[in-house]
Amino acid sequence: MKFNKNAVGREIPEYLEGIGELVPFKGVDAIKPTKKKAGAKLRMRIQDEPKIVASIEEAIKKSGLKDGMTISFHHHMRNGDTVVNRVLDIIAKMGIKDITLAPSSLSPCHGPVIEHIKSGVVTGIQSSGLREPLGDEISKGILKKPVIIRSHGGRARAIEDGELHIDVAFIAAPSCDEMGNMNGRTGKSACGSMGYAIVDAQYADYVIAITDNLVPFPNLPASIDQTLVDSVVVVDEIGDPKKIVSGAIRFSDNPRDLLIAQNAVKVIINSGYFKDGFVYQTGAAGASLAVTSLLREEMIKQNIKASLGLGGITSQLVGLLEEGLMSALYDTQCFDLDAVRSIKENERHYEISASFYANPNTAGPAVNNLTFVMLGALEIDKDFNVNVMTKSDGTINQAVGGHQDTAPGAKISVILAPLMRARIPIIVDRVTTVCTPGEAVDVICTDYGIVVNPRRKDLIETLTKAGIKLKTIEEMKEMAEQLTGKPDPVEFTDEIVGVVEYRDGSIIDVIKKVKD
Amino acid sequence: MKFNKNAVGREIPEYLEGIGELVPFKGVDAIKPTKKKAGAKLRMRIQDEPKIVASIEEAIKKSGLKDGMTISFHHHMRNGDTVVNRVLDIIAKMGIKDITLAPSSLSPCHGPVIEHIKSGVVTGIQSSGLREPLGDEISKGILKKPVIIRSHGGRARAIEDGELHIDVAFIAAPSCDEMGNMNGRTGKSACGSMGYAIVDAQYADYVIAITDNLVPFPNLPASIDQTLVDSVVVVDEIGDPKKIVSGAIRFSDNPRDLLIAQNAVKVIINSGYFKDGFVYQTGAAGASLAVTSLLREEMIKQNIKASLGLGGITSQLVGLLEEGLMSALYDTQCFDLDAVRSIKENERHYEISASFYANPNTAGPAVNNLTFVMLGALEIDKDFNVNVMTKSDGTINQAVGGHQDTAPGAKISVILAPLMRARIPIIVDRVTTVCTPGEAVDVICTDYGIVVNPRRKDLIETLTKAGIKLKTIEEMKEMAEQLTGKPDPVEFTDEIVGVVEYRDGSIIDVIKKVKD
Repeated sequence: MKFNKNAVGREIPEYLEGIGELVPFKGVDAIKPTKKKAGAKLRMRIQDEPKIVASIEEAIKKSGLKDGMTISFHHHMRNGDTVVNRVLDIIAKMGIKDITLAPSSLSPCHGPVIEHIKSGVVTGIQSSGLREPLGDEISKGILKKPVIIRSHGGRARAIEDGELHIDVAFIAAPSCDEMGNMNGRTGKSACGSMGYAIVDAQYADYVIAITDNLVPFPNLPASIDQTLVDSVVVVDEIGDPKKIVSGAIRFSDNPRDLLIAQNAVKVIINSGYFKDGFVYQTGAAGASLAVTSLLREEMIKQNIKASLGLGGITSQLVGLLEEGLMSALYDTQCFDLDAVRSIKENERHYEISASFYANPNTAGPAVNNLTFVMLGALEIDKDFNVNVMTKSDGTINQAVGGHQDTAPGAKISVILAPLMRARIPIIVDRVTTVCTPGEAVDVICTDYGIVVNPRRKDLIETLTKAGIKLKTIEEMKEMAEQLTGKPDPVEFTDEIVGVVEYRDGSIIDVIKKVKD
Repeated sequence: MKFNKNAVGREIPEYLEGIGELVPFKGVDAIKPTKKKAGAKLRMRIQDEPKIVASIEEAIKKSGLKDGMTISFHHHMRNGDTVVNRVLDIIAKMGIKDITLAPSSLSPCHGPVIEHIKSGVVTGIQSSGLREPLGDEISKGILKKPVIIRSHGGRARAIEDGELHIDVAFIAAPSCDEMGNMNGRTGKSACGSMGYAIVDAQYADYVIAITDNLVPFPNLPASIDQTLVDSVVVVDEIGDPKKIVSGAIRFSDNPRDLLIAQNAVKVIINSGYFKDGFVYQTGAAGASLAVTSLLREEMIKQNIKASLGLGGITSQLVGLLEEGLMSALYDTQCFDLDAVRSIKENERHYEISASFYANPNTAGPAVNNLTFVMLGALEIDKDFNVNVMTKSDGTINQAVGGHQDTAPGAKISVILAPLMRARIPIIVDRVTTVCTPGEAVDVICTDYGIVVNPRRKDLIETLTKAGIKLKTIEEMKEMAEQLTGKPDPVEFTDEIVGVVEYRDGSIIDVIKKVKD
């Protein structure tokens, strides 16, 4: 196997069986697209032929799904999803094999996929997220082809560029009419935005809506509309409502989270970018929520208003919108019930597709409008590279999500992380898996201080002038190691079980099989 | 030149200089698509590079527009549009030649295009509509390549199938932000829906927004969004508001229109299709408006509610929506101020693209949901073929619009036409130009009675049983000729100045140069 060292120093094979030729990562935005957008198969529906079919099996037969094809799902049902497992069981029963499973993400509830891998029904997986127990098993090498990990924007790009061609998209629809007009706003399985599924529906050769809530025609708004949907199947349930969205997530009172958040807010308000019209994204973890809460106070105090909030939307961001502190929300995914309510009620809470959110190969994805983004990390290394995919034991877990998309998109990307977790240091010499390149990471806020990437001389100067004490990454690493000791390196075999794509489709890292 | 007779008996050349090979029309829905959708050029915007440029000329330079390319415009500004003429003047000044002009339609205000044709700036036109004085001049043979006339659905299809490739789309935007998020809902040039422009923006290689109303980011809803727009130019005006949309169009009290409308309503309510959930489209001409008005009374009397109203939306359809007689409107184009107000206020008044409206090569265009459509005609012949494009003197005028899309889409297509106009009979032996094939025309309602296409035996039986007296097309034609005399045939040369495409891309007729 021939290897090329990529721009973050990882050895990338030139060719990988089951995937093909690999382009090594060349740096942020280094690869410009040259092709044309892909296009789904054109089809003309026979007029008056009903789209509603009696069963998923019948819909699959009509779709022409065959051995070797690629199917997709969205992950708006999160850990409450019952559609992936149900469809795979039916595919298995129908005797179809060698399927590539290409959902927007997978959750812990998708453990049953393991059996379909072992029986040869599923031979490839392309996803943003892979959790226990599936991630562990893949790390042991059970999957025939290496898994491809893509960010949300990277997946939209791969679909639109034609690298990920979806033969049949299965779309769990919280509300749907007989023509296939669907949205996520009503019904017992309401999930709010259907942003990830929109791209699938636009580019798949055949689209099957699976709904537990058939509503009168026309169902509006049509997040995915009748021109894209070939079959509609009504089932008893598409998910467990209790696990689809959370109730409002509570503000953290963990003192460590508060320390991290205080550092982040210090950076934001002294960065020179904290001005009317800023654009903000954060996640739903404790420290992120704490940042938003503290930031809100500063916005009120300084009378500064944001133009836009992005990302997976939480009740906190809905609050900023409703208070008039934020002019609009772009929503690819709702994280809680408040977000679902808001997207239904408020026209300034705007549903966008994963491509609108983060596809770099467009004339302007939303992530590139970000002023500040708050991001997490499993590991960060001396070069500021971030790992959000593999655990300290080297196995696949978690998800790349929008990390890789928002970090380069934002004016200031801030990693929020405790210095250690369960006595394992977060800042290390070399991350197990590079997901986001250090080039795109501007600031690290831990509970022990603030580090600014030396590339951001401007920011170091501004913050220092504002009287903020900064640490170097080496200082932070040493502090961690003093507290925890230097962890033993994880041992891997040479077998590659996965690749992590950068948002432009190049390979930023490979994931190897762990040693038993 | 070799010719093939098509399914409506017209001689279609196998090849036409300036267009290429022609596929003769083979019958409604006879040609199934086999290819994949086309795709626009992928592009990555350099982050932070402003999209706003100082002038249209600068935007054109950035677009890379060159001799021989194709440019597009939408016609939502209707006869108030000032963008087409302005852009063509600039292109001419820049010395660019041999341009194909491919707007969704052209209006009488586009007379200045004639000069650009004569100077070689414009050598091809593809449009749904062509009016005086431009239509007359093209009928005289001034354009280098034959004009291609497409329906609204046919144009969306041609763009999505890749037959009409747009190099640069110029989009007049009644409201737009610095990222290119635009809609037609606010501003002095508000036009409501931007349905026709949506397809252009999705498939053009370069998109220029031209606005007279720059609004704060993010402008929502984004009928056309930031991922599709390359440049934004702010100008003083994009149109004459007085001519963009009309005030509410008044109900006709022309007794002839009333007679026609009464016949149409008789057909509708006795057709067996007048039931809860019906889908309805009509135009904005006198008789159409009268039909809607009479139909409304019947809906109230019989307590029947429509699920959907389609098409160019008028205050009458808005009224039905607001009264609860219609559950929703799908809107590709607003015809009046009431429609503009309604689309802004009412989420059941839903903006759709021209492709959603009428592209036959999708999994379900809205036109195929129609129960009833009311359509006009310049001429109808014994085979029920309809001409909506050429005048009785043979010259090009008017527009195909959605005629060709809705007639086959609807369960019952009704042509509303007076028996004669200005002493010229409407029902003739052979229409000058076939735009909609007789196969798709179910009923003709004139001020002298009702004709049902003999193909619709079911409908003849139902209506006859209901006691409605029907006439044959021959009877109707004789009646017309008795009143007007048989008109002298128009004399044409052999030179083909245009082709009329059917919605599937085949050629339903050619338009020849008139004899001087």
